[in-house]
Order: sequence, then structure tokens, then C-alpha cells
Amino acid sequence: MVIKKIALLPGDGIGPEVCRQAVKVLDAVAERFGHRFEFTSHLVGACAIDATGNPLPDETLAACRASDAVLFGAIGDPKYDNDPSAKVRPEQGLLRMRKELGLFANIRPVTAYKALLKHSPLKADRIEGTDLVIFRELTGGIYFGGKGRMADGSAYDHCTYSRAEIERIAHLAFQSAAGRRQHLTLVDKANVLETSRLWREVVREIAPSYPEVTVDYLFVDNAAMQIIINPKQFDVILTENMFGDIISDEASVIAGSMGLLPSASVGADVAVFEPIHGSYPQAKGKGIANPLAAILSAAMLLDHLELTEEAALVREAVDEALTNQILTPELNPTAPYTTEQVGSYVAFWI
Amino acid sequence: MVIKKIALLPGDGIGPEVCRQAVKVLDAVAERFGHRFEFTSHLVGACAIDATGNPLPDETLAACRASDAVLFGAIGDPKYDNDPSAKVRPEQGLLRMRKELGLFANIRPVTAYKALLKHSPLKADRIEGTDLVIFRELTGGIYFGGKGRMADGSAYDHCTYSRAEIERIAHLAFQSAAGRRQHLTLVDKANVLETSRLWREVVREIAPSYPEVTVDYLFVDNAAMQIIINPKQFDVILTENMFGDIISDEASVIAGSMGLLPSASVGADVAVFEPIHGSYPQAKGKGIANPLAAILSAAMLLDHLELTEEAALVREAVDEALTNQILTPELNPTAPYTTEQVGSYVAFWI
Ligand SMILES: CC(C)[C@H](C(=O)O)[C@@H](O)C(=O)O
Ligand SMILES: CC(C)[C@H](C(=O)O)[C@@H](O)C(=O)O
Repeated sequence: MVIKKIALLPGDGIGPEVCRQAVKVLDAVAERFGHRFEFTSHLVGACAIDATGNPLPDETLAACRASDAVLFGAIGDPKYDNDPSAKVRPEQGLLRMRKELGLFANIRPVTAYKALLKHSPLKADRIEGTDLVIFRELTGGIYFGGKGRMADGSAYDHCTYSRAEIERIAHLAFQSAAGRRQHLTLVDKANVLETSRLWREVVREIAPSYPEVTVDYLFVDNAAMQIIINPKQFDVILTENMFGDIISDEASVIAGSMGLLPSASVGADVAVFEPIHGSYPQAKGKGIANPLAAILSAAMLLDHLELTEEAALVREAVDEALTNQILTPELNPTAPYTTEQVGSYVAFWI
Repeated sequence: MVIKKIALLPGDGIGPEVCRQAVKVLDAVAERFGHRFEFTSHLVGACAIDATGNPLPDETLAACRASDAVLFGAIGDPKYDNDPSAKVRPEQGLLRMRKELGLFANIRPVTAYKALLKHSPLKADRIEGTDLVIFRELTGGIYFGGKGRMADGSAYDHCTYSRAEIERIAHLAFQSAAGRRQHLTLVDKANVLETSRLWREVVREIAPSYPEVTVDYLFVDNAAMQIIINPKQFDVILTENMFGDIISDEASVIAGSMGLLPSASVGADVAVFEPIHGSYPQAKGKGIANPLAAILSAAMLLDHLELTEEAALVREAVDEALTNQILTPELNPTAPYTTEQVGSYVAFWI
């Protein structure tokens, strides 16, 4: 029996409702295995701005640090999106959380579920069997470099990477590849960018420590095609922050729905687990949000806590929901189930 | 009858063989319409490095400037690709050409040809009817900002945009949209990047001058999904250099083959027309390279010279090749034609 503190950061839009289902499933896991998960809920994003003026209140950050793991919903609200130059924005909470908690690696597995092949915009034979994982650097690069305006009205963003920033995530990606199909692809733009050339150098230096792993190098423009043309060629993809943002959202089309894709952000300290979908404000409160990405994020959280049997059981329960079409409207338009029902069905199978 | 000087820059790999077919087609156009196209050929890329040590010799640049239009093949050679830190690289020739000739806008139309729907990795119903054009900024941003290493071994790349750089391409994109389906989508990352916020500001300022054009704003990560999920929603896409590199290569999967996609790079001065595919060194000299992208680039060149009837005829001839399956192996694996044969067939229809 284990006791674990889990900080919940439901956030905005559909964040709270999908988190609720993940909690339901974690509660079922706790009951079945005799564990205790202690949940506390904290503000982040637009709701935190509305309540406190700060998208990431100190209280929230302290709660994350005091927890064994964080379950995150989603952030973002149209009232801030439509004003990108607003001084305080929900995204700042997310970016600051990543930086403060040292979440330098965002890990996104992408699987083509058999039951969902018909929902993908890609032809089934191209994607069936896809099983890749993207390691996106999350606390460096152009996201966190200097940015501003110059006297002449022009704008700038600076992209920087140190060797250490590249090394730590490269080791994680190599370790992951070693335990999977032993194939790592670095995605960069080394024919143009100096930072990309440094990424290649560092990865080349590290590669000999993982002799069983084959390393490929792909320019990001080519990678953006290859992921669609032949996603099965990939095992582990390693890339920098901005390219990872683009490539990992692009790769989500393979699964047929964003509503299926979990992610983990890890660092030195505590780790954060979140569905890759956004706050989807149009769906808020309608019971149509797919909770499976949040539930699969909870499975990644269990793996992280070394509760692997428990994690496997959650994934099996999700497979049951997929096989039996107990799915929200975007995946089952003719006989849809609600967010709540899908969560309960998965919990029931635990 | 018109007389035009066309500078040919065949470049590396399959560049020369596909350019040859485009020239054949332009010769047929000249004969049919009684024009005179004066071709001169010049070095660029790896072959230029091998011959002169310089990927863009002065002679080549002068010839471009003295011409009415430039037809470009492709550049790149594995012996340089595998050494991204080599001091002289073929890509430098391409980037310098863009800068020296002021080619600030790269224009890439993407069409889903009916005859090719089965070759696309995307399901036919998702892409049938797609007709979009991407305006990629080509002489600014992170490609041309300061880059280097710091004393501590870290690397940097600087991204900068001035208002003027954004305005001039935005006007081109709005004009194009006004003559098409009156819909422009700006792709940026305004929730993170200061340069993107400037792009949004400038586009918002310009929009009222084109009241008939509806403007949308899309974050690049979302755009990377939307282009695959529902490409028909797009008419004109406007974006900065790095995002345009990724998004436009990604969008090429819609057509079912890179071998079909032409592009135009325009600026104050002379314009350059080139297939979007690369030098594809593995295919060099085998007669399997698809010449249609180069031929369709020649059609864009004719449009640029205001020879619109001639351009339309070339496109009709290409349609004949598609309809009758007179295609290279990647599109017609069972009864393939050679590069040469496809070029001759198109020329024959002129
Ligand atoms: C909201 C935004 C700042 C964020 C990012 O770009 O990192 C999001 O797109 C993501 O991928 O988590
Ligand atoms: C070869 C490379 C420098 C170039 C670019 O990134 O611009 C190419 O990918 C392109 O899109 O024309």
C-alpha cells in the first residue's frame, strides 16, 4: 500500500470535467489496490487570473512542489486569446510552471488505436501499428529567450540552447529508445540554425553511450512530411521546444482524436501529467469532452510513481471503452456517451 | 511575340534532369506562340562549390539579375548534409540568392489533383477539392538573424522582423486572397513570440484595406493539425519564414507527391521559380524523377511574365499526363514512364 499526494490543477474550459474523470479512475485504482491518493485542487490559467490576477499563484506552485505528482487539465480562455498583447495571459502560468518546476522534457506517446483508425484523416494502412513517442524540450529555446521591441518598431525573439539543456533531455530520450525499438530520430534544422547544429553535436557525442540505439537526423520540414507519409518509421523523436510544439500537435492527427493523447512533463523535481488537448471552451459543461486523454495521463502518472501494474490496468480499461465504443460524440456520433459516463465506465473496469 | 531571357540554375541531384523537361516544355510554348525564350545555364549549390568553391558564384547572381525570370532546379548533396558544420554548404547559396535578389515571398500553391487522390496518405474525402496557397516570408526571421556560439559553449539564433518586412508580403497575400476565395489565415505563435505578436498587429492594421477578405489567426501548432484534418478550410495562408518552411512541406502531402508542387519566389527584382522537392540524390540519373513540379514551376514563370494563356496551356498538358497516367514510378508503379518521357508527353500536348 502506498500513500501519494497528487496536486490537481484542473484549469480552464473542459479541464475540470476531464480531470474529474481521471480522479474517479485513480480513486478506483486506490480502492482496488489498497492505496491512498490524497488530492488537493489548485488554481491555474484564466480562472486563476480571474480569482487572483496571477495565472500561476504562489500557493499553486507550492502545492505542486509539495506533491508526489501533478495532474493538470488545460488552460486558456477566448477572452485572452483574442487579445494576444494582453499583459497577463493564461499561457504565462503554464510557461512559468514549466520553468519553476524544471519540467525540461515533455513526453508524448502517439498510438494508432485500432478502434479509431476510421476517425483518422490518414488512411488506415499508413497508420496502423504506429507507436511513437516524442520528447520535446520544454524549458529552453525561443520560448524562454529574450524577446521585445526595438526603437524602430521591429520585434525580436532569441533562441538559445546550452549543452547541458540538450544533454539532459537527450539522455532521457536515449534511455526511452533503449527500452523500446532502439531507434531515435533527432528533428532539427541543422542546415540553417546554429542551435540545431549544437543539438546534432551533443546527440552525436552521447550516441556512443547507447550503442544499441540507432540514431537518425531529420530536418524539421522533412519530418513534418514523414510523420504523415509514414509514421511507422518512428520510434523515439527528440526535438527542441518550438519544433516539438508543432510536430507533436501534428502527430496527434494519427490517433484520430486529440481526446486520446496524454503527456508527461518531467524534470528534476515533481512531474506533471496532462492531456495534450486544450481547454476547448466551446465544449465546456456540455458533457461532450473526451476524458480519455486525462485518464491516460493518469496512467502515465501511475507509471511515474512506479505503480506499473495499476497503470496497465487503467490502459486495459480504456481499451475496453474503445472496443465497446463507450465514447464521446466526436468518436461515436451515432450513440454517444457523456464525459461522465465514459469516466464511470473506465472506473468500473478497474 | 515576346523575347525573354530565362536564367537556368539546375543545381544538384535531379535538378538538371527535371529542369531539362521544363525547358523542353517552354521551347514547345515558344514555338507554338512564336515567342523567343533565351536560356543560359549557371552553377548553384554543391556543383558550384565543387567547381568554384562558392555555392553562389558572382557570375550566377549577375546572370539572374540580367534575366527576366529564373528557373531553379534543386540543391543539396549528401556529402555536405552529413557534415552540417562544414564551412561552405550548398544551402548557403540558396539563402544568399534569396537575400541578394530580395526574394521576400515564397508562394506555394497546393492542389489535390483528382487523379492522385489515391496516392495521398490522407483520406480522399478529406482532401478532394483542396486549393490553397501558402505565402511564406523568405528573407527574414530566424534564418537571417544573428547566430553563433557563446564562450560557455551554448548556441544562439536570433529571430527579428520589422514592420516593413511583414507589410510587403502581407499585401501580396491579401491581394492574392482578394482574387481567390477572399480568405486569409495568418499562422503564428502570438501566444509566445513577440515577433508573432508584431505579425498579428501589422496584419490587423492592413486588413481594413481589403474589406472583402476575411482574416483568421491560427497558432502554428494548431495549423499543423488543421492542414491535415481539414485542408479545405484554407484559401491563402500567410506566415513567417521558419513556420512557412515546416507548414508548406507538411501541406505537400495533400497532393500525394512532392513531385507535383511548384513554387515562385518573388521580390522587388527578378523572380525565381522552382519545384519544392529537393535534389533527391538517390534518384539522380535514373530517369525516375518526376518533372511535373519543374514543369508547373515553368507555368508559374509564364504567368509571372503575363503569358497567362501559355501558362494555362501548360497546366492543361500536365492534366493530360495525370489523366492518362503518363507518370513516373512513384505515381505509376505498375507502368511507369521516365522523366524524359513525361516531359516529352507534356511538350507534345502544347
Ligand atoms: C499554450 C502554449 C503556450 C503551449 C506551448 O506552445 O507550449 C501549448 O501549445 C502546448 O503545446 O502545451
Ligand atoms: C534547404 C533549406 C535551407 C530550405 C529552407 O529551409 O528554406 C528548404 O528547406 C526550402 O524550403 O527551400
